Amino acid sequence: MVGSMTVSVNSTPPVDLCANGTVHQAELLSASDDDHGGIIVDMKEPMDPDVFHAKLRASLSFWRQQGKRGIWIKLPIALVNLVETAVKKGFRYHHAEPNYLMLVYWIPDTPSTIPANASHRVSIGAIVLNDKREILVVQEKSGKLKGTGVWKIPTGGVDEGEEIFMAAVREVKEETGVDTEFLEIIAFRQWHKSFFEKSDLVFLCRLHPLSFDIQKQDLEIEAAQWMPYEEYAAQPVAQNHDLFAYITDLCLAKVDRDCVGFFPQPSRSTLDDHDQIGYLYSNVRDSSQSTSAAHQ
Amino acid sequence: MVGSMTVSVNSTPPVDLCANGTVHQAELLSASDDDHGGIIVDMKEPMDPDVFHAKLRASLSFWRQQGKRGIWIKLPIALVNLVETAVKKGFRYHHAEPNYLMLVYWIPDTPSTIPANASHRVSIGAIVLNDKREILVVQEKSGKLKGTGVWKIPTGGVDEGEEIFMAAVREVKEETGVDTEFLEIIAFRQWHKSFFEKSDLVFLCRLHPLSFDIQKQDLEIEAAQWMPYEEYAAQPVAQNHDLFAYITDLCLAKVDRDCVGFFPQPSRSTLDDHDQIGYLYSNVRDSSQSTSAAHQ
Repeated sequence: MVGSMTVSVNSTPPVDLCANGTVHQAELLSASDDDHGGIIVDMKEPMDPDVFHAKLRASLSFWRQQGKRGIWIKLPIALVNLVETAVKKGFRYHHAEPNYLMLVYWIPDTPSTIPANASHRVSIGAIVLNDKREILVVQEKSGKLKGTGVWKIPTGGVDEGEEIFMAAVREVKEETGVDTEFLEIIAFRQWHKSFFEKSDLVFLCRLHPLSFDIQKQDLEIEAAQWMPYEEYAAQPVAQNHDLFAYITDLCLAKVDRDCVGFFPQPSRSTLDDHDQIGYLYSNVRDSSQSTSAAHQ
Repeated sequence: MVGSMTVSVNSTPPVDLCANGTVHQAELLSASDDDHGGIIVDMKEPMDPDVFHAKLRASLSFWRQQGKRGIWIKLPIALVNLVETAVKKGFRYHHAEPNYLMLVYWIPDTPSTIPANASHRVSIGAIVLNDKREILVVQEKSGKLKGTGVWKIPTGGVDEGEEIFMAAVREVKEETGVDTEFLEIIAFRQWHKSFFEKSDLVFLCRLHPLSFDIQKQDLEIEAAQWMPYEEYAAQPVAQNHDLFAYITDLCLAKVDRDCVGFFPQPSRSTLDDHDQIGYLYSNVRDSSQSTSAAHQ
């Protein structure tokens, strides 16, 4: 597992980098150490590109002397005028979010150990069955099934920082108005090159309905209903498409044969950054170490 | 689930955008339609920033007239001199990989439906137990456990485009030289803000050893060995840390009580892009729709 970017202030004073022996503190960029022998420059204030160039050159020289490894520069989009300068000094893009660009430079001659950017998008599919053996289904206003009349389970993206089981409950509520309790993950699917070069992980969640009145969301959802499970499974799309058929099989296995899914358990580890809680999903519902998250 | 960026060539001819009625085909950027009502500009050849600015302005005006929605510009890092121009025309960053930057502009007045960038990094932890109830463990040369004497299971990142179960086999081989067969995923864990704003998903895999001689990888691994399971589980770190203890519990549950994990099954869906194979993981080993991937 790759470590954190926990930052401590770099207390080493700038040294003289000029041929004439004059000390030029202003020539160095403000920076912090990371805990992997690297440096983070978090640019916040505007800077003239020529000044940036001079400071960057001096700073790189200084960091090289110090034996630093990976050099990170975070540029808010408002400082887009500095991107070209950084790239011309040898920086490469690491990742971008809407409002900033992260650039990186590897100083050593050894291969870079800089961790790759995030590679997967995560989403959920929600199977909500009521006591009448009906499944909660929707028709969407966009996407490949638009206008086909196919009924599908609610699906949606897991937001940044969101727990998978909470995303399933949220998406069902948003799309259909139905309140649910999370039961278990019964399957997940990975595939590649779904969106540019990125991969997808979709977690198929089983949920227990707590309410039954449908209030569909109008922006994305054309229609929503409780549908007899056999009618849902008998749709032509379910007959012709491997994945759809496999999911309906899985549902029936759950209903009829009680196969076991994974449940979330809160777990803490000081090996994580910030000693935060994470959720471990397995089919061991109760553990001496944890309590069930599904019934909190 | 979010759809693809499948591209078809935009066959609509450029129209006159000049006040004097002259047709200026050269004023428009080369572009393709995506299948969500948007446009993709894949810049490959160098262009003067002033020319780019004029073409971008004319193109945006044209696309607006056409009712286009999301406008994508992919700029290779060699064309970094055009980034500032795009941002000043209102483009925002969508994502970046080491060698390119993707910018996006949302034309309609309605809220953007542009999918978010990848949010998760995916990695594996490998539990390899032999018939003598010994577990394959390593000590790493870097990271938080460096120099602590703690023995841990092999872990590592899932490469872009790689199947999770294949990543587990690869990592064990790379770190220890031991050949294995993938058995099942017995748990996975999600946590947040692990690396910048991104989240992690770690899949805990159980593997069956096919060879036993250890040839450790020197770059990252300090030591590797087969260790009696009880000795591994009795390490102080396992006693003090929730997650470590939970994992050892899970292993014992597997060994002693035969709790069930998830197995990968290849599945195909025409709802996916490119009609490609993906792997669905569940505890239903055999299905009428699929054959087991674990034993291919």
